[in-house]
Amino acid sequence: MMTSKKVVELFYDVASPYSWLGFEVICRYKNVWNIDLKFRPAFLGGVMKGSGNKSPAMVQKKVLYMDKDLSRLRDYFNVPMQHPADPIGVIFKKGSLSAMRFLTAVQEREGGNTMAEQVSRELFLRIWNEDKDITEPGSLSEVPAAVKAGLSESEIKELLELYTSPKMKDKLRSTTQDALDYGAFGFPLLVCHVNSKAEVFFGSDRFELMAHCIGEKWLGPQPEK
Amino acid sequence: MMTSKKVVELFYDVASPYSWLGFEVICRYKNVWNIDLKFRPAFLGGVMKGSGNKSPAMVQKKVLYMDKDLSRLRDYFNVPMQHPADPIGVIFKKGSLSAMRFLTAVQEREGGNTMAEQVSRELFLRIWNEDKDITEPGSLSEVPAAVKAGLSESEIKELLELYTSPKMKDKLRSTTQDALDYGAFGFPLLVCHVNSKAEVFFGSDRFELMAHCIGEKWLGPQPEK
Repeated sequence: MMTSKKVVELFYDVASPYSWLGFEVICRYKNVWNIDLKFRPAFLGGVMKGSGNKSPAMVQKKVLYMDKDLSRLRDYFNVPMQHPADPIGVIFKKGSLSAMRFLTAVQEREGGNTMAEQVSRELFLRIWNEDKDITEPGSLSEVPAAVKAGLSESEIKELLELYTSPKMKDKLRSTTQDALDYGAFGFPLLVCHVNSKAEVFFGSDRFELMAHCIGEKWLGPQPEK
Repeated sequence: MMTSKKVVELFYDVASPYSWLGFEVICRYKNVWNIDLKFRPAFLGGVMKGSGNKSPAMVQKKVLYMDKDLSRLRDYFNVPMQHPADPIGVIFKKGSLSAMRFLTAVQEREGGNTMAEQVSRELFLRIWNEDKDITEPGSLSEVPAAVKAGLSESEIKELLELYTSPKMKDKLRSTTQDALDYGAFGFPLLVCHVNSKAEVFFGSDRFELMAHCIGEKWLGPQPEK
């Protein structure tokens, strides 16, 4: 008898370093646990505004702690995160709106997960490892992800037209609203559908609890190691 | 050859439900891991003020999430937490200043950990399970902990005089300042002394990472089960 897979939605934004940690861990478990993982690229700025939450960067001691926390988690989770030279500029001034619309377009165009996963990872790498721009069309067109994912030049051109369309703006807005409706005040947000109920987990530090709730086993952040 | 125990300091306040979770977990590990656990009862209000942090209760979606998060963690961690009828009144209006001074006095008087552990647990139970007052001298004198910990009536009377003394006020203030100096913006805060360095962990969700950093094994929130 087949056991139907539990649907797990991952809401995330490439501007959020904890999103990257959560993204990599759940990607590693997508074939280890009996789950159907759905990527929900959304806009963190919209979630902060919609929930009335303030960035942790408003409290100096939180910034210092997060810095240390992220570097320890990076090593323990084995995610090649580097500190951008100007994190405030990258996260708050430049932001991720274009990148998340681009990712929305990639996912809509594909109608699936494979390319969305690769492009997401390349965007995370770009911002959190290579310290490169993710806001300009020129930057997005050169996202190595697009190339590595096997898109032709005309397909990339098509994506670059698609991502600024009202349809993609609406799609990103509605995904962000879905996150807010699930109670989001930050990312990553994992929504597990268990027995017709949505169990919502915030952050990249609830995987052990989440595994317990969905009847799976937590094997640490590197399950295949 | 004996390996010297790693010192782990636990800064906590009985008004903080995540402190209770962290307290119980580290207490369960104190004889499982090769650590020397030191209780550092401190004042959460002072840490919030000193760090400029705002309570999560300022954001409605955080309150709703924490409520759900705490009830799931309570079950998974096996800590008998109940929601007080009026959490805002209990945490913000009544507060924990007297209780933390009382606990400071208990620890100072004992010069050790055993009674401090029992009295801490009784105070956590009183606020987070029995929904009873912890602010009035009459309440503190009846803290069942004091009785269960085997204190005579005259010893309890002595504690009730001691806890309002300038010396205990200063001691609690200095412990709270120590927490701030370690970078605290909330509780619980675990400070692990490893190779002459202080590794600081905030919250009750970093035990797996902490175990990794101090060279111990994380066996889940109930290691002896």
